[in-house]
Amino acid sequence: MSDQPALGVAVIGYSFMGKAHSNAWRNVGAFYPDVPAVRQQVLVGRDEAKLAAAAAQYGWAQTAGDWREVITRDDVDIIDVCTPGHLHAEVALAALRAGKHVVVEKPLANSVADAEKLVAAAEHATSRSMLGFNYRRVPALALARALVADGEIGQVRQARLTYLQDWLADASAPMTWRLRKETAGTGVLGDLGSHAIDQLRYLLDEEVVAASGTLRTFVSERPGEAGTEQVTVDDAAWATLHTSGGVVASLEVSRVATGRKNALTIELFGDRGALAFDLERMNELRVHRASGPVALQGSTAIMVTEEEHPYLEAWWPAGHVLGWDHTFTSQAADFLRAIATGGPVHPTFADGLAVQRVLSAIETSAARGGARVDMR
Amino acid sequence: MSDQPALGVAVIGYSFMGKAHSNAWRNVGAFYPDVPAVRQQVLVGRDEAKLAAAAAQYGWAQTAGDWREVITRDDVDIIDVCTPGHLHAEVALAALRAGKHVVVEKPLANSVADAEKLVAAAEHATSRSMLGFNYRRVPALALARALVADGEIGQVRQARLTYLQDWLADASAPMTWRLRKETAGTGVLGDLGSHAIDQLRYLLDEEVVAASGTLRTFVSERPGEAGTEQVTVDDAAWATLHTSGGVVASLEVSRVATGRKNALTIELFGDRGALAFDLERMNELRVHRASGPVALQGSTAIMVTEEEHPYLEAWWPAGHVLGWDHTFTSQAADFLRAIATGGPVHPTFADGLAVQRVLSAIETSAARGGARVDMR
Amino acid sequence: MSDQPALGVAVIGYSFMGKAHSNAWRNVGAFYPDVPAVRQQVLVGRDEAKLAAAAAQYGWAQTAGDWREVITRDDVDIIDVCTPGHLHAEVALAALRAGKHVVVEKPLANSVADAEKLVAAAEHATSRSMLGFNYRRVPALALARALVADGEIGQVRQARLTYLQDWLADASAPMTWRLRKETAGTGVLGDLGSHAIDQLRYLLDEEVVAASGTLRTFVSERPGEAGTEQVTVDDAAWATLHTSGGVVASLEVSRVATGRKNALTIELFGDRGALAFDLERMNELRVHRASGPVALQGSTAIMVTEEEHPYLEAWWPAGHVLGWDHTFTSQAADFLRAIATGGPVHPTFADGLAVQRVLSAIETSAARGGARVDMR
Amino acid sequence: MSDQPALGVAVIGYSFMGKAHSNAWRNVGAFYPDVPAVRQQVLVGRDEAKLAAAAAQYGWAQTAGDWREVITRDDVDIIDVCTPGHLHAEVALAALRAGKHVVVEKPLANSVADAEKLVAAAEHATSRSMLGFNYRRVPALALARALVADGEIGQVRQARLTYLQDWLADASAPMTWRLRKETAGTGVLGDLGSHAIDQLRYLLDEEVVAASGTLRTFVSERPGEAGTEQVTVDDAAWATLHTSGGVVASLEVSRVATGRKNALTIELFGDRGALAFDLERMNELRVHRASGPVALQGSTAIMVTEEEHPYLEAWWPAGHVLGWDHTFTSQAADFLRAIATGGPVHPTFADGLAVQRVLSAIETSAARGGARVDMR
Repeated sequence: MSDQPALGVAVIGYSFMGKAHSNAWRNVGAFYPDVPAVRQQVLVGRDEAKLAAAAAQYGWAQTAGDWREVITRDDVDIIDVCTPGHLHAEVALAALRAGKHVVVEKPLANSVADAEKLVAAAEHATSRSMLGFNYRRVPALALARALVADGEIGQVRQARLTYLQDWLADASAPMTWRLRKETAGTGVLGDLGSHAIDQLRYLLDEEVVAASGTLRTFVSERPGEAGTEQVTVDDAAWATLHTSGGVVASLEVSRVATGRKNALTIELFGDRGALAFDLERMNELRVHRASGPVALQGSTAIMVTEEEHPYLEAWWPAGHVLGWDHTFTSQAADFLRAIATGGPVHPTFADGLAVQRVLSAIETSAARGGARVDMR
Repeated sequence: MSDQPALGVAVIGYSFMGKAHSNAWRNVGAFYPDVPAVRQQVLVGRDEAKLAAAAAQYGWAQTAGDWREVITRDDVDIIDVCTPGHLHAEVALAALRAGKHVVVEKPLANSVADAEKLVAAAEHATSRSMLGFNYRRVPALALARALVADGEIGQVRQARLTYLQDWLADASAPMTWRLRKETAGTGVLGDLGSHAIDQLRYLLDEEVVAASGTLRTFVSERPGEAGTEQVTVDDAAWATLHTSGGVVASLEVSRVATGRKNALTIELFGDRGALAFDLERMNELRVHRASGPVALQGSTAIMVTEEEHPYLEAWWPAGHVLGWDHTFTSQAADFLRAIATGGPVHPTFADGLAVQRVLSAIETSAARGGARVDMR
Repeated sequence: MSDQPALGVAVIGYSFMGKAHSNAWRNVGAFYPDVPAVRQQVLVGRDEAKLAAAAAQYGWAQTAGDWREVITRDDVDIIDVCTPGHLHAEVALAALRAGKHVVVEKPLANSVADAEKLVAAAEHATSRSMLGFNYRRVPALALARALVADGEIGQVRQARLTYLQDWLADASAPMTWRLRKETAGTGVLGDLGSHAIDQLRYLLDEEVVAASGTLRTFVSERPGEAGTEQVTVDDAAWATLHTSGGVVASLEVSRVATGRKNALTIELFGDRGALAFDLERMNELRVHRASGPVALQGSTAIMVTEEEHPYLEAWWPAGHVLGWDHTFTSQAADFLRAIATGGPVHPTFADGLAVQRVLSAIETSAARGGARVDMR
Repeated sequence: MSDQPALGVAVIGYSFMGKAHSNAWRNVGAFYPDVPAVRQQVLVGRDEAKLAAAAAQYGWAQTAGDWREVITRDDVDIIDVCTPGHLHAEVALAALRAGKHVVVEKPLANSVADAEKLVAAAEHATSRSMLGFNYRRVPALALARALVADGEIGQVRQARLTYLQDWLADASAPMTWRLRKETAGTGVLGDLGSHAIDQLRYLLDEEVVAASGTLRTFVSERPGEAGTEQVTVDDAAWATLHTSGGVVASLEVSRVATGRKNALTIELFGDRGALAFDLERMNELRVHRASGPVALQGSTAIMVTEEEHPYLEAWWPAGHVLGWDHTFTSQAADFLRAIATGGPVHPTFADGLAVQRVLSAIETSAARGGARVDMR
């Protein structure tokens, strides 16, 4: 536990992501006592009554209605942006200019142009910044990256990624802002596809250099508050991605995959082994190693809860599984440690920009009937 | 057991498929006593010594070196073509002309043109014909088709199909005729992709109407008998398929998917449910039904070994699992029954032609950088 | 969020269970805003330096060295006993006498006699008490109990329970106080068996009325600090239990089950269905219902993360899995709600006593060569 | 393929086991060309019409109504006893006396005394004999035995075995001869428990030396042809077994385990690893090895279909799964090879006797309230 004064945190936004990030700030010190202490200083939002309730519930000392005022406060050191995506750029840019450390929940921005501005700003800032692809802190995926880097599965050739949910499977599910292009930018491709693309880059430590894609809206009209409305974003998307290292990756994301609740699944096939992961069983990693006696080869289901595994020393004894929200706590710890040490932290805004470019290439390809788009 | 004289069968080819088909003819009567009896009359092949050994081993009364002679024999009623694919058309056409019933192991032919000739011949023949996509007789898949037809999963929207093997994962695995375009026609796309495409059409009862695809040869040179040789076919392929009913299907096939031995996997997502199958666990079908109390919804692993399930009444009591080869026995039974009753039997040569056209569209798309090819 | 002043909590003990309970008190308000607010008032322990560090890390306002002093403090309303088991009775009895609400981590006590005293004290107390079998708050198990009560699986006949770990599988693992009878009372039977027995009673809502058992110490000597020491408790145990409702349950617990990290597994077989659970996949419950068409029957893997499932409304959206520690948070919420409403809360000390009696019967049976011990 | 004249086989009994054994004799030569050829000479049974139909269906040259006549025929070399268990001893003894090779389907006999007679007769016979515990020829289980023998999982300490079915789960399922003590001898204990006990002995290569047990009849009356009848055998049984090598094994067998169709499950825990098997997924073996980096340890699901695996070279390429009936074919091959070479073959009648003694010890223990019965 450091002797330094605690860092003041402000979270902008108090709904789903605000709840998750609040949970992280509230608990990070209890599991990672080596990182700088934090103060849950201020929760920012527009609806005063709801905001007050959320702040009380999630442990915030104060509330504020305007993020512009908050980013200049002396008692705030870290700005954590949990707003809808189209506001990310404006808030984060201002916060960096104000000299604050900045966390931006994914996606980095809704456009490549905005993402580029953020990358430039982060590079010139004296403060630290990080993007919130929280699944990088799933212990099983951090282990997977280490195994790939160590050559455990050899040269990777093929990757298969999905992110499947089903909350739009019912055609009578109502219209929301997420289904309008003007507010959401994109549909499931950006929302869930971005996570999968980030993992591909993270696990392989390679860039996507070409993409071909298909988008589909299966339910084109949904009941809105004022009658039937057009759905103007995709509710499923497919892509074939090519990486700088020669890997071919298939990607499939959907909000209408009946029965799948949160199925970020990843398979990597190398010339000496393979890996498989499913977020619905996030404490497990399956590893196949094509070595040793053939009669004993198979897919090994590793329960990623040993203290030898990434992040686990901070948590519970072997076999005591982690939940989804713990990834945010570990993410906060990594960010705080980087602030203290000046060392690197990921994902960077540049990672976010790279993902944005892939999403854009997929959209371009889809608009051209699936023809491959080379990105460089 | 019928009082009719047994039907004489000739199998052309005695290697892997010859062994599997011989097994079917030897056992069909023991499990399906209601269909016409058969005589294992003659096994046809070129290498006399090997042929004689195979015939003795697999239970054939006679051998012959020339299929042309066999197709006109009076003691032969059924010609079962298990040769390499590029000979299928010639043999099958001649056999039909000779008035014989014909079974052709998949693929129907190595080209769309040949396939079209076979379809025309079959339509005009007085004898019966069938194509050997044996997985249509996996009980779990026959059940899956029935469930789709009965509307158990509602309107299907997305399908995911893979057929993954790993026998070429090792870059030092030697060259074979299967890796030369002139002998094999295509690589894994035709070999394994054809099974997957047939299943897609079979399970949905829909046609593929557009396709985009990508082919890749990861290991472009392999050790041949006379030094290093070029691999001239794909060892992995990806496609996005669009069906007449509006389903979007992703397809991925590979011979370098380390750790996967025979993974024909199929997932169908409908608006009221979903199905999942893996050939490596061929006695199981997983069914999700989005009905009843939400708290009880999930993926039901059905052990498809009940007498209420397709084909099972012929076999063993519940829980006594079937193997891969039993699919051929059931296929033979369906063909024999069709001969006896004059009723329909599938897959037809037309099914084979349809699959061939999809394969061709995928190849065309791949040659055009993945741009979508509309098939009508 | 209540307007009542927050309840002051003192946790006695700061190691593994102290960390888990601290986590619960720190977070309960964030997920269950409807229950009385709490203050993390004081953490109690003997080692001053370690205690101070733990208190700072886990969020406690103060520390204290003597639990006797703490139980009478006005700013403390709830005493949460996380000491080793042989101290549970003394602390809890004193706390009840002092009029405090009391939570006791399992086991209730190390002897039936002590457990009886605690039950009597709790019955006469004006304050509330609860025992910490935290797995009652695993959503999947709470769902299981509801399904049994609703008759979803009919009349239960057989139950199979295990609790398997492997931290003693290595014969060279060192001696600890847990392996000495004088300090630990019993071995794996009490430590893990108690959880399983509690679940059996909880899920069925029945009592165990007879037991036969076997105990075994596979590694009888282990390296201690002063040379080789005798292990004087069991490292595996087996029992056959008979319930008031005629169910026969098998029980197997082990600390040498190589490869199993935290495998509390439960299967219930009724005349109309079955349930299965494994703590290593604690967000899942498998349910078999022997109703509807036979062709569609199977084991349904329910992902217990819907808001329709027990406890889930407090947490995250569907598919965002919970971890082990969340059970303690939900347990704290149930206790606080009971304090506020005066309503019932479970497990009671009487539940703890009932478990203790079953453990005792198993030990008695084991000492008699496995002969059945009738408990009434 | 041998040049010796084919061995004539007679199967006594034509129902379930007669069908399975007929299948083995019909196919053994096709998969195991190295063993002596066989002739399906004669099928023996009492109901002439059914027998004739079965013989035609299963490929037998002749039928006979009286086994006594058959066992002396010159054209019969092997007598394969597939009658109900209470007739095994008489037929097998006579066949051995007649100098015939004898296969007896399990159980060896219905009593220890009969089993002892058979063992003595087999020892003095000049012909060969074998008992039909077919699961010894499940490739995964043969592999498991080899792994134990090779020390892959170290010193085995605990074993868990179940054999669970559910065909009696429905209380209205009708009475059969299997549920009357006078015809069946025992209930599920002998029927399914015998398989599990044989596997325990086979996998460990150890004897059971002590047992304690519990029997239960959950449904004590069932509808018979002439009104309600008493069920006089167990429909579930539990036992704790102790082996010569110090292993403790739990055993649970049931015919009322709703949802389990043929669940012979086996888990072995050694000090350096563990094995797990489930007959419902008979092509898989799960192996845990507690060696190498802790971060990579887990349970490896081996698909036991490689040519490096036991028996697989005879069958199909990797990933092409076997079915239940193939175990009988491999068993027949092993027997024929032993006849040809004079080498050993298992299981012997002595194995059957050993199993019978364990069953008897369990019954004795159950009658004594579960007290442990030492067998030597």
